[in-house]
Amino acid sequence: MLPTIQWTDAGVVMIDQTRLPKETIFITCKTYQEVAEAIRTMIIRGAPAIGVAAAMGVALGMQSATAATFRTHLDTVCETLAKTRPTAVNLFWAIDRMKKLALSLEAEGLAAVQAKLVDEALRVYEDDIAINKAIGSHGAPLVPDGRVVLTHCNAGALATAGYGTALGVIRAAVEAGKKIAVFADETRPFLQGARLTAWELQQDGIETTLITDNMAGHFLKAGKIGCVVVGADRIARNGDVANKIGTYSVAVLAKENNVPFYVAAPISTLDLTLASGDLIPIEERAAKEVTEVFGVPVAPEGIGVANPAFDVTPNRYVTGIITEKGVARAPYEVSLPALAAIE
Amino acid sequence: MLPTIQWTDAGVVMIDQTRLPKETIFITCKTYQEVAEAIRTMIIRGAPAIGVAAAMGVALGMQSATAATFRTHLDTVCETLAKTRPTAVNLFWAIDRMKKLALSLEAEGLAAVQAKLVDEALRVYEDDIAINKAIGSHGAPLVPDGRVVLTHCNAGALATAGYGTALGVIRAAVEAGKKIAVFADETRPFLQGARLTAWELQQDGIETTLITDNMAGHFLKAGKIGCVVVGADRIARNGDVANKIGTYSVAVLAKENNVPFYVAAPISTLDLTLASGDLIPIEERAAKEVTEVFGVPVAPEGIGVANPAFDVTPNRYVTGIITEKGVARAPYEVSLPALAAIE
Repeated sequence: MLPTIQWTDAGVVMIDQTRLPKETIFITCKTYQEVAEAIRTMIIRGAPAIGVAAAMGVALGMQSATAATFRTHLDTVCETLAKTRPTAVNLFWAIDRMKKLALSLEAEGLAAVQAKLVDEALRVYEDDIAINKAIGSHGAPLVPDGRVVLTHCNAGALATAGYGTALGVIRAAVEAGKKIAVFADETRPFLQGARLTAWELQQDGIETTLITDNMAGHFLKAGKIGCVVVGADRIARNGDVANKIGTYSVAVLAKENNVPFYVAAPISTLDLTLASGDLIPIEERAAKEVTEVFGVPVAPEGIGVANPAFDVTPNRYVTGIITEKGVARAPYEVSLPALAAIE
Repeated sequence: MLPTIQWTDAGVVMIDQTRLPKETIFITCKTYQEVAEAIRTMIIRGAPAIGVAAAMGVALGMQSATAATFRTHLDTVCETLAKTRPTAVNLFWAIDRMKKLALSLEAEGLAAVQAKLVDEALRVYEDDIAINKAIGSHGAPLVPDGRVVLTHCNAGALATAGYGTALGVIRAAVEAGKKIAVFADETRPFLQGARLTAWELQQDGIETTLITDNMAGHFLKAGKIGCVVVGADRIARNGDVANKIGTYSVAVLAKENNVPFYVAAPISTLDLTLASGDLIPIEERAAKEVTEVFGVPVAPEGIGVANPAFDVTPNRYVTGIITEKGVARAPYEVSLPALAAIE
């Protein structure tokens, strides 16, 4: 796999995920504003990857701070990055982690803070890969051998620093010798499934069938699917899961057909401050994502559009939440805080 | 509304539904083979419209029959039209109606048969509009006033000779003075919702919001939708409904959220010979419909694809089936044959 994001001397380098799989283009963000813009426009997307990008964005942004402007500059950098997208909590988690570190090191002098923020961003990056591998090892045993796994959107290497959460579980199951194939929802409007998941799995040589989102129910009813595994953008304390629009529908259809529905996500995706998923802010994105595909209009001009980027799956549809610290099961109010508290 | 299909001296004229709403182009089928190709390539689509096209195709095809070849020519014309698409039963219903008439008239001489087949095709056309108006009048009272109606695919004027089945119910409700708005699923892969339903309703001045298919569940859960109305391609004796892929998912999500789910279809869509929906043949269409949008690739080359064009909604998810003879309710094994038997 090509790296999703990298810290380099020239800046933060990202593969442009809006142009995959047609074109493999890397862009270099030389300022924190460019990192923010890359997050906003979904050049980089996926909750864990956004977290890594934000950490690198803070490190990059603080390179242009002065001792005199340290605090105001830190605030500006963090606020700019925080305003990019509202739903994935990993963004705020990463910014918070970087900001707290910067403030705690202030006395050591600007150069030391700047160097240590870069180290910390690299740690967030490397931790994320290790976390995904751990999620994979906890999740692999749950995947039924010889069956098809359905996934929605892209919770793969491209949504993380590498390896992936939902696709990490699939990769780990394949590495463990299980014979599994994947059905990938194309995931309108942004087509992360068609463009990114299909591309990642094809590169790994994992048998993949691309379907439109509205076919998932048909194949769940037909007994074709052994389990569903998806990622998450934010998980409330009660186990309600915000994830890419369409996830809720897949979860209901899985339950209706007695197919296990798993969510794979790092502990950093938990938001224990929220009692339920109703409190998770849902991003509304531009109408053009729905009315155009790669710039080609697919609807009459001037038509009304709704474009919520995420939905919330109530905990009763979730069979288990696979984290790097183990698998949480209902009641999530108990299991999730307990997992989060493990050192 | 522009006419979906018309019998003219130059041939059967259809609006090319593959190019709407970008381009409004009419094509003229001068032979029955061209009518068959137009059905196969979805220049014309929608179960009732396919029935009308097939009736006109038989009438057109028989214009080139000779007295000597009458029966073999009739068989060839009917078989060619019957092979175009397998799921919508209206196709076979219309061909059967035309064939029986032709055979019953054989003794009257070729010229008389040819003229009467044209009359019959025009009757199928005109009947369909009247049927749709009747469906609308039976369905309008079921639509809750002041609420949003969700529809999937296009069961509108373009899917029929005119007025529409599901959209006929919506039109009749609006004409009855109800204040309703519509949410239209875009309906991948062929985008009939985005391209055709949105376009039809926009022309009628009915407030319409276009959503991707995977958003329907989110809005059903949010309490945004007052009822769902869709069309049908074939309805088994027990009330199981074959309709555009994705219909099953909408039905499950509607039931899960206590939202009524109605099917609007003419009696000619009933297939009382089939005990259940499991027996309805489901068309599998080309992979390119999924991997390309208007010729633009949206997935990596060589990826596996499934593309079932229809799914089957079990009768337990169907609140009512709105026909021109009234509304059938469960148990459908009783109510559907009873409705069909009404003169």
